[in-house]
Amino acid sequence: MGLQFQLLHQAAAGGRRAELDLPHRRVATPVFMPVGTAGTVKAVTQEVIEDLGADLILGNTYHLYLRPGHEAIRRMGGLHRFMSWPRALLTDSGGFQVFSLSALRKVTGEGVSFRSHLDGSSHFFTPEHSMDVQIALGADIAMAFDECTEYPASRARAEESLRLTMAWAERSLAHSRAHCHEVPWFDQFEGRRQSLFGIVQGGMYKDLRRESAERLVAMDFDGYAIGGLSVGEPRELTAEMIAEVLPLLPPDKPRYVMGVGYPDEIELYARMGVDMMDCVLPTRAARHGLLFTSEGRLNIKGRRYAEDQGPPDPACACPVCRRYTRAYLRHLQVAGEPLGGTLNTIHNLAYYLGIMERVRSELGREAPVAE
Amino acid sequence: MGLQFQLLHQAAAGGRRAELDLPHRRVATPVFMPVGTAGTVKAVTQEVIEDLGADLILGNTYHLYLRPGHEAIRRMGGLHRFMSWPRALLTDSGGFQVFSLSALRKVTGEGVSFRSHLDGSSHFFTPEHSMDVQIALGADIAMAFDECTEYPASRARAEESLRLTMAWAERSLAHSRAHCHEVPWFDQFEGRRQSLFGIVQGGMYKDLRRESAERLVAMDFDGYAIGGLSVGEPRELTAEMIAEVLPLLPPDKPRYVMGVGYPDEIELYARMGVDMMDCVLPTRAARHGLLFTSEGRLNIKGRRYAEDQGPPDPACACPVCRRYTRAYLRHLQVAGEPLGGTLNTIHNLAYYLGIMERVRSELGREAPVAE
Repeated sequence: MGLQFQLLHQAAAGGRRAELDLPHRRVATPVFMPVGTAGTVKAVTQEVIEDLGADLILGNTYHLYLRPGHEAIRRMGGLHRFMSWPRALLTDSGGFQVFSLSALRKVTGEGVSFRSHLDGSSHFFTPEHSMDVQIALGADIAMAFDECTEYPASRARAEESLRLTMAWAERSLAHSRAHCHEVPWFDQFEGRRQSLFGIVQGGMYKDLRRESAERLVAMDFDGYAIGGLSVGEPRELTAEMIAEVLPLLPPDKPRYVMGVGYPDEIELYARMGVDMMDCVLPTRAARHGLLFTSEGRLNIKGRRYAEDQGPPDPACACPVCRRYTRAYLRHLQVAGEPLGGTLNTIHNLAYYLGIMERVRSELGREAPVAE
Repeated sequence: MGLQFQLLHQAAAGGRRAELDLPHRRVATPVFMPVGTAGTVKAVTQEVIEDLGADLILGNTYHLYLRPGHEAIRRMGGLHRFMSWPRALLTDSGGFQVFSLSALRKVTGEGVSFRSHLDGSSHFFTPEHSMDVQIALGADIAMAFDECTEYPASRARAEESLRLTMAWAERSLAHSRAHCHEVPWFDQFEGRRQSLFGIVQGGMYKDLRRESAERLVAMDFDGYAIGGLSVGEPRELTAEMIAEVLPLLPPDKPRYVMGVGYPDEIELYARMGVDMMDCVLPTRAARHGLLFTSEGRLNIKGRRYAEDQGPPDPACACPVCRRYTRAYLRHLQVAGEPLGGTLNTIHNLAYYLGIMERVRSELGREAPVAE
């Protein structure tokens, strides 16, 4: 048995409350997933991530494959044990990072060869290999190996990319179904296996997006992601693509929009019916001193905060806003103190997770869809 | 009233258990004080420092004077409030950093002019100015402005440096006594004022050390530090200088050896009768991947830890040793992840604070000095 997904409330406006039951954790959706690229949500301890109420976080297959290596992680009991994270994990397929970070890529129908951005070493990823790596890491949810279509892309290019991604989706699914019982924790959770999501691509072409969704649904994945968004296109287009795809996805399976977004975006997409989202924005921006607050974005390095003794966000009850001042956070950032990135990250994650908590609560009170 | 120092147990071997009562905290001694250079014990939150049981930490006057500036900190209620640290604080005089970090120093009897290591700006520190800065910061304990004699130093140089330091000690004390009620928290603790420690110098010349101690004791400081140690001299010499000075200091006042040391050193000096010590070693080494453990020093970057699933220190019950493995810490360090420095720092501080806790407990059971 893979994931269990129980719809609790379907609002007429599209949004929905649900419970996503994974081997390592039950997760209330819509959920925002903090990104833990290399087995760590950058600059914060696992204790803090737990205290913030995160139930499901991401690991990046490309990074962990290169360092410390998936076989080492498998030998150490999988990523949960390696990083001491007992709650749920999702790994991406490595595809996005192969295309965005590595050098000298060469794509064939079989897979993609590339050189590591760390040491230039040569590697070859196929859908089957991505599955093997993700099974070794042992996240609760793995992602099919796909090619993220760049923006802008010509129709011919988007079609070609989609053809590749659909073929890889089939191979990913077949390999996952054959080997998903090989996750390091298989004996720990009776009858549970790793789940696999397919990824809808198709660039910014609605008909290609539709075709992609329909073909993936026919393959019967455990859940469906919409990828290739937030890659430079205008926001309206992002929402348009999501709106085009959502109605084609089965209502009883989770829907995940990858790599979004700003606070207002994650709220908007959750209200449209997206169940899962992830983004490096709250954590990456934090390390550069950008705070997301109920009063808008706040660049903490600003001179006007030098003696501001108010909390980062007066409406926030996170451990940082309860204890520290803007002036102190500014000082840490200006002085390049590592604590600055840590405290900013804690606040931004609390803010993102708080948005989802509020949206879940509000969705539960919205007018339900007619039976 | 400055600090209160109550001897609880004087062991025949020299060590002593005492309670140091400061406006912001009662501190059990012997105590190791983590260093919070720029208003932060690098890479860890104040919550964690509290949880580790640290009651008294250091701030560096030179760093805080340059950034964010002592007047700004005064306006924000002092260093305790600025960094949200409700327990006790000690600030150094700035002298050591002026001599070790700044550029283009020029020392006269009046004071020292120097250029900031941050932006090259010109500054002039006198004993009076150091006191004003430390009063603005408002630590529970301030230090007299001194010149830390370098090692090695000729006798003539050590004598000249001592002459300067003794004159500056008198001026520091006079200015502190006249203005110590100007600390930002003066109204908060009825009848309490900032305490001031004199600093024994004299290079590695026993008679100069004795002269320095005797002259400072005659001035009647609230406590006495031994400075100018751990500056490159062999360890035996460090202990020799401490042993020479301790008997000359009044038993009813705290004794502080500045800037030491390795775990075995802080234990040794505590057993000799030193009440307070500070050092950047546990925190700085941590950020470079060096862990202090019951099994000795451990460079976590070592390849042999790549799949070591044991805790950093099997005998340690700190939050890091309870949760994370050597393999994980190695991965974080090798990958340059900020969490590595944070977790290493937490363990090293727990280890240092644990040594002092054990020594306090053991000292309390040692044969007492004859009445």
